[in-house]
Amino acid sequence: MAKLIKNGTIVTATDQYQGDILIENGVITQIGLNLTRKDAVIVDAKGKYVFPGGIDPHTHLDMPFGGTVTADNFETGTRAAAFGGTTMVIDFCLTNKGKPLSQSVETWHQKAAGKAVIDYSFHLMIAEINDEVLAELPAMIQEEGITSLKVFMAYKNVFQADDGTLYRTLLEAKKHGALVMVHAENGDVIEYLISQALEAGQTDPIYHALTRPSLIEGEATGRAAKLTDLANSQLYVVHVTCEEAVQQITEARNRGVDIWGETCPQYLMLDQTYLEKPDFEGAKYVWSPPLRPKFHQDVLWNALKTGQLQTVGSDQCSFNFIGQKDLGLGDFSKIPNGGPCIEDRFSILYSEGVGKGRITINQFVDIIATRSAKLFGLFPKKGTIAVGGDADLVIFDPTVKRTISVETHHMNVDYNPFEGLEIKGEPVTVLSRGEFVILDKQFVGEAGNGQFVKRRTYVSSASGEAVSKKETIRGGVPNV
Amino acid sequence: MAKLIKNGTIVTATDQYQGDILIENGVITQIGLNLTRKDAVIVDAKGKYVFPGGIDPHTHLDMPFGGTVTADNFETGTRAAAFGGTTMVIDFCLTNKGKPLSQSVETWHQKAAGKAVIDYSFHLMIAEINDEVLAELPAMIQEEGITSLKVFMAYKNVFQADDGTLYRTLLEAKKHGALVMVHAENGDVIEYLISQALEAGQTDPIYHALTRPSLIEGEATGRAAKLTDLANSQLYVVHVTCEEAVQQITEARNRGVDIWGETCPQYLMLDQTYLEKPDFEGAKYVWSPPLRPKFHQDVLWNALKTGQLQTVGSDQCSFNFIGQKDLGLGDFSKIPNGGPCIEDRFSILYSEGVGKGRITINQFVDIIATRSAKLFGLFPKKGTIAVGGDADLVIFDPTVKRTISVETHHMNVDYNPFEGLEIKGEPVTVLSRGEFVILDKQFVGEAGNGQFVKRRTYVSSASGEAVSKKETIRGGVPNV
Amino acid sequence: MAKLIKNGTIVTATDQYQGDILIENGVITQIGLNLTRKDAVIVDAKGKYVFPGGIDPHTHLDMPFGGTVTADNFETGTRAAAFGGTTMVIDFCLTNKGKPLSQSVETWHQKAAGKAVIDYSFHLMIAEINDEVLAELPAMIQEEGITSLKVFMAYKNVFQADDGTLYRTLLEAKKHGALVMVHAENGDVIEYLISQALEAGQTDPIYHALTRPSLIEGEATGRAAKLTDLANSQLYVVHVTCEEAVQQITEARNRGVDIWGETCPQYLMLDQTYLEKPDFEGAKYVWSPPLRPKFHQDVLWNALKTGQLQTVGSDQCSFNFIGQKDLGLGDFSKIPNGGPCIEDRFSILYSEGVGKGRITINQFVDIIATRSAKLFGLFPKKGTIAVGGDADLVIFDPTVKRTISVETHHMNVDYNPFEGLEIKGEPVTVLSRGEFVILDKQFVGEAGNGQFVKRRTYVSSASGEAVSKKETIRGGVPNV
Amino acid sequence: MAKLIKNGTIVTATDQYQGDILIENGVITQIGLNLTRKDAVIVDAKGKYVFPGGIDPHTHLDMPFGGTVTADNFETGTRAAAFGGTTMVIDFCLTNKGKPLSQSVETWHQKAAGKAVIDYSFHLMIAEINDEVLAELPAMIQEEGITSLKVFMAYKNVFQADDGTLYRTLLEAKKHGALVMVHAENGDVIEYLISQALEAGQTDPIYHALTRPSLIEGEATGRAAKLTDLANSQLYVVHVTCEEAVQQITEARNRGVDIWGETCPQYLMLDQTYLEKPDFEGAKYVWSPPLRPKFHQDVLWNALKTGQLQTVGSDQCSFNFIGQKDLGLGDFSKIPNGGPCIEDRFSILYSEGVGKGRITINQFVDIIATRSAKLFGLFPKKGTIAVGGDADLVIFDPTVKRTISVETHHMNVDYNPFEGLEIKGEPVTVLSRGEFVILDKQFVGEAGNGQFVKRRTYVSSASGEAVSKKETIRGGVPNV
Repeated sequence: MAKLIKNGTIVTATDQYQGDILIENGVITQIGLNLTRKDAVIVDAKGKYVFPGGIDPHTHLDMPFGGTVTADNFETGTRAAAFGGTTMVIDFCLTNKGKPLSQSVETWHQKAAGKAVIDYSFHLMIAEINDEVLAELPAMIQEEGITSLKVFMAYKNVFQADDGTLYRTLLEAKKHGALVMVHAENGDVIEYLISQALEAGQTDPIYHALTRPSLIEGEATGRAAKLTDLANSQLYVVHVTCEEAVQQITEARNRGVDIWGETCPQYLMLDQTYLEKPDFEGAKYVWSPPLRPKFHQDVLWNALKTGQLQTVGSDQCSFNFIGQKDLGLGDFSKIPNGGPCIEDRFSILYSEGVGKGRITINQFVDIIATRSAKLFGLFPKKGTIAVGGDADLVIFDPTVKRTISVETHHMNVDYNPFEGLEIKGEPVTVLSRGEFVILDKQFVGEAGNGQFVKRRTYVSSASGEAVSKKETIRGGVPNV
Repeated sequence: MAKLIKNGTIVTATDQYQGDILIENGVITQIGLNLTRKDAVIVDAKGKYVFPGGIDPHTHLDMPFGGTVTADNFETGTRAAAFGGTTMVIDFCLTNKGKPLSQSVETWHQKAAGKAVIDYSFHLMIAEINDEVLAELPAMIQEEGITSLKVFMAYKNVFQADDGTLYRTLLEAKKHGALVMVHAENGDVIEYLISQALEAGQTDPIYHALTRPSLIEGEATGRAAKLTDLANSQLYVVHVTCEEAVQQITEARNRGVDIWGETCPQYLMLDQTYLEKPDFEGAKYVWSPPLRPKFHQDVLWNALKTGQLQTVGSDQCSFNFIGQKDLGLGDFSKIPNGGPCIEDRFSILYSEGVGKGRITINQFVDIIATRSAKLFGLFPKKGTIAVGGDADLVIFDPTVKRTISVETHHMNVDYNPFEGLEIKGEPVTVLSRGEFVILDKQFVGEAGNGQFVKRRTYVSSASGEAVSKKETIRGGVPNV
Repeated sequence: MAKLIKNGTIVTATDQYQGDILIENGVITQIGLNLTRKDAVIVDAKGKYVFPGGIDPHTHLDMPFGGTVTADNFETGTRAAAFGGTTMVIDFCLTNKGKPLSQSVETWHQKAAGKAVIDYSFHLMIAEINDEVLAELPAMIQEEGITSLKVFMAYKNVFQADDGTLYRTLLEAKKHGALVMVHAENGDVIEYLISQALEAGQTDPIYHALTRPSLIEGEATGRAAKLTDLANSQLYVVHVTCEEAVQQITEARNRGVDIWGETCPQYLMLDQTYLEKPDFEGAKYVWSPPLRPKFHQDVLWNALKTGQLQTVGSDQCSFNFIGQKDLGLGDFSKIPNGGPCIEDRFSILYSEGVGKGRITINQFVDIIATRSAKLFGLFPKKGTIAVGGDADLVIFDPTVKRTISVETHHMNVDYNPFEGLEIKGEPVTVLSRGEFVILDKQFVGEAGNGQFVKRRTYVSSASGEAVSKKETIRGGVPNV
Repeated sequence: MAKLIKNGTIVTATDQYQGDILIENGVITQIGLNLTRKDAVIVDAKGKYVFPGGIDPHTHLDMPFGGTVTADNFETGTRAAAFGGTTMVIDFCLTNKGKPLSQSVETWHQKAAGKAVIDYSFHLMIAEINDEVLAELPAMIQEEGITSLKVFMAYKNVFQADDGTLYRTLLEAKKHGALVMVHAENGDVIEYLISQALEAGQTDPIYHALTRPSLIEGEATGRAAKLTDLANSQLYVVHVTCEEAVQQITEARNRGVDIWGETCPQYLMLDQTYLEKPDFEGAKYVWSPPLRPKFHQDVLWNALKTGQLQTVGSDQCSFNFIGQKDLGLGDFSKIPNGGPCIEDRFSILYSEGVGKGRITINQFVDIIATRSAKLFGLFPKKGTIAVGGDADLVIFDPTVKRTISVETHHMNVDYNPFEGLEIKGEPVTVLSRGEFVILDKQFVGEAGNGQFVKRRTYVSSASGEAVSKKETIRGGVPNV
């Protein structure tokens, strides 16, 4: 049945205007002034913004980590996402050395199937490059529509790949049309720093931050950028937390490298002192990379404003404080890394970004939805409000004042890292492909309604002839 | 009478999709699939792009310079602009020391009235700051809608203002809501270099370039950026030509300065060797700043791609080769500065930018129209394709191949600096506020149909709380 | 009569060793182990350092400024210098527009003649370039031995020269063998900031600092560096105070520009908060450029350590607090700029630099003496301890602890800006051309014993074929 | 027997003057004008320079590599060094995982004993850090006087250490007083590039260069610099070849890191095109890192001039073209890496550096001798000309013109990479601890006269309180 959203203020990454939106068969078919349609369900959006549904490019749902499993699975996670204004998530599919990629992907399909309430897709972790992986990759990318590959430069002896693997992943990605994502921290050094801290009896959560200094996030980021340059490939740096990393990304972009950067609400809003909270509460704030000294927040906000960074992901990876985070009591290195943010990402960025004048409302849409859609092969089906696109929409009331709290959030986890944060604005109604998932702040969706989306291959934003970087010598080497 | 543009591929700075556009009373009222309207004029745009009309942020029409007057006035200039896909120009209103600003503006209104075939506005040159200027400025900006002020750092003893004047202009602009524009070259040094060259008998056009080295464009650009930082104001650097200037702008933006940069097709496509053409033909390529060695072109293209520069203006300032440029025979310093580009700006940027993969088609729209509309207070009335906005539209055939030539161009000048350039794509039909100006490549507009547009005051793109730059000490000084 | 300095630890910019020094006819003739000489005066330096006498490259003695004259003249100033371990000063000879350079130099010779107790030379201020100045300069440099030219970018309407004058001075200096020195602050902007502060009733000394922000010292420094690059000339930036200026100098050096930087003890040791001292005492700390926020001190020390800056001058320019500084009561802009430092420069740099491990003892000698000797054409006659050189020597006891105070200093001024600073080390005996000036901490010299030293022309430290900077286009312009 | 060197022009890293030098018991005891000594051997140095003997900080003598052994051993190598003006070498002692360090050092002592004609010392390679290594290191450094540790970031599966090992080596070095040296190239990526080239049949010597791009020398250099910063330790980057690496070193130094850089004559004089010489002759020019495109040479010369790099080593590692280099016929990766330069390092740097005005004669002495003496704990015994120091001296005739050639060189290898290079200046007489090794260009030394020199522990050039780098968080971690 058709739907007609009336009188909202429609906002895209470029535009802002009053208008009505007609939805038929899950797709936007008309946008105009004073639209009418007899048989349509009318949704009044007067005084509200109509945004494209948020796209969260970075989630870990139902993921095993350190002997436990994240508190949110695809059902609780995507439902919370929808409450928060997000209509699409791209989750990380872990893989194991020696195991076929297809088998890992199948596992991930099973986790999501019948549970997701909004659409989803997967990034694929690359742990090694060998003949089997090389054989599977083209189909993964071009047939399965999994067009982004994740490489870890940290978590030594667990996820960490060496530079040769990263480099070869960059080459394969270029060849087959995928975007490479890196977790950029120097795992070798971190491993030693952790061992030293523990040996010295420094076991509290704060040592999680102190053993992962920003200097070596910057180092690893620069290293990945240079390998990307050499491979003439494309890179997306996940969860950028610090000035050093921003500088490396900026410098690479400005010399012509196809590189992108993501940050997260936690790095924009929280700082290292949170890890010092008493009674082990610091464990709630254990992410990797860790929270940083406060001055980095200004750098990150400015980077979003100037386009040095392009997206904000949640890095959703929730663990209960009681029963999970406390695995690390007496040994910070055993605290499960990560936290819940899938629900609040959208609203925090609006309230703290647009509401406080740090970014424009169009930049907000770009950062929260459009840019991820473009980078990850979802555009123009997802990520904007335009005729012909999926009706993934958020009707957002900018006047509501509210307080983020575990008491009211919908994630399946026993704390909220932004507890007490007062924000302005709230998603009221959320549609996924034209169907209500949230209606007047009530969940009306259904587990399993979310569909897996095969994504398009990566297209360099500008793949052209102008290259400002100095001619390198790689021309002589085949396939480089 | 309503118009219905059918089946085009609509492109904005964010979107690209198939759809129909309904225009009523000069305004876009609906965008949708399979729109119908009985009484509307139907325009078939199948196989064509529908772009927002180009906005040229930098023209000099009917402008006196060096004892002569530009070859194109508001009639010939805007007609040529329309042929080229541009539906709005912002022209520079010169002023004189000691003369009321209002009087200069009145002169400019008279130049344009009854002549322009598309809409237009003015930037206002600031030659000095004194009590009279201070008294006039608020009304100029807030009532006359002239919300951009131009300061020259070059043309010693003609247009050049000193740093104190630039600084005070930045303060006033901030206070009243205007954007300051600078021509950034060190006029003092240039004056001496010119005198030395002439003294040595070096009179050919190439010495125009050799006496204005890129190093001091970079110097002046950095100086203006730092004064902007100090004044906590906003700056737009016109006609950026070189790596040194791009670096200064980038560095300032990244430390939080509200700064923007424009380049021009001539700097993207032509280089310094053009000034060495025999038989004084080099004079055709005399712009200030001058054309640069070729490697700067790659830097400029990459800067557009990464967002280090944001707009492309024509710097239209045409002089006939015979009868005007030849005033400089035997003395390069007497060659009128400038060239014709108002017509080809749009198509060159499409063909060389999008066509050659250097920028995306959305970036093209942003650069050629949307960004200027936002920076100069025309948005959302102009600069995009959205419900409620002016129907300033270009229907563009991307398949046409053609050659730029004085034989076919519509500017009132006897040469074309891009003569012989083969490009792809051509504006077929152009509408200004819903009325055809160009229809099937024929001019159907009328002199005087173009209206003066009062512009909105400047709003910092993100004026907020996040400031990554170091706290400065200026807090102690009033009004600083 | 010969002198034999026994058993000291001899230190040069490179070496440190035990040895004896034989002095004959004012010149060092032997250095060795266990030297003997029957008829020589023996000076026991056991347990003490023997340093080359300090060279102060930046003094203003007997200088008129703002309606008064500096408190120290060539007699009191050089005597204090000698007490402090300095055996040579280079003073700034002011000039006036329209007055022959030779006449100004003659005035300065008269100020010094019969008064100086140690050797001296002059830098020559350039206020304008015209035919008269062009005619006089070659002889000034090559015959009078005044091989350094000073240009002011600040003090609008007083000393300030425009960029054309600076550029031409750079060209003349290159041609005739002089080193150009700049006071780098943007005078135009400062003038306006001062007027605004006064208009707002902000008259206290702290506004001196607040109206001269570091941002525009950096701006002017970068501007001067770029003009030097363009002129292919040589530059020495006096009294560098801040990170912004250090960065500009470093960047220019690293792209091949022949550029040098000096800082002063006050910028290394004192900070902006001193200007906030009550009871107008802030006026004692009014230098231009002003004292800066404290973090700049670390930048300056590190710059000395790494060689980004090369010298430390005193910028001696003393005015009594009572009777002179108080001219600025109620109007900070009338406070005479400058302070007394000629006596303590040497000891502070030793104590705070070497004593605190910030620089090596060899770097100390280089910074305090040798580098200035080399840059300003005094080497190897002055500035080191080597056979054949003038016996300008300091015997320095590194074990003495003492406190700097107006009570004990020898400058003719009623306060000491470093009052209360506890330092380690003291000059015990000082020789000028082999004659005792200070003997066992007593003055034994004589006014008039100091001689004017004609200096050698400037030789680029490395003037050779390797140029890492990009080829510029200036080749085409004569004399550039 | 005493020696008296008469009338030479004595040059140190600071000074240049006429004088005589008296040598007794191998030590300089007097320097003066007109020295006399009845029983001394007189050496006339009139018209000649007297330099400190060169110190070569980077040699590989009698070293096994790739199944062969370097062509020069400690006898032929040090004799050639002496002919070239070098009086001290520091050779790299290779180690193996699992083998005691002391055993490797003992091997190296045996290689040198009875063979060296000049003094020598060893750097110690660190392949791994484990309990045994940790146990041995303090004595190695503080008792054996081996105060520099070498870590390889390249040569995967041969010498390469991982980042954890590098980091721990930096920590140990800091603790015990050693300087860490790195070979900075990304071995992981190189290994893959080589495998790809070979797979594609690209086996010629030029592919040695093409598979080791400068980008990843820059990457590894920056990584090492950042780990040094984090460890608050000290680093010396060997054989820097390119702009990217120079930039990383400079940036680190300027933010306060204790970091130093060495380049080699081959990188200053030869370029990548040499590897394309026909008939496999390119193999003669196979060094790692490889020769680079020519523009890097200007960067390196400028870096020596400005102090961004501080030393020039030979990286002596000679292999005969016939019988050794040809192991790589048909597979460039089997060409033994390295070349002969121990003899020509001194003269090339003089002729091309001082002779062509790129560096001053004092800088030459610093680069060729003094700085290495200071960094590697040999100063003031070695590396300068001062009373009390070893009489390691070179009498150098700057007027001789000659041509470098295998025909005339004294190295035990069948080619000279600088064949045909015309240079100015030649060592005439060379003394080691006061004994002639070369006299009037004839070898008069004796194998075995060279002694092993225990070196002093590393002292940070300035270890003090001024730290311009941002406060890092490492304080919280023990031993970091």
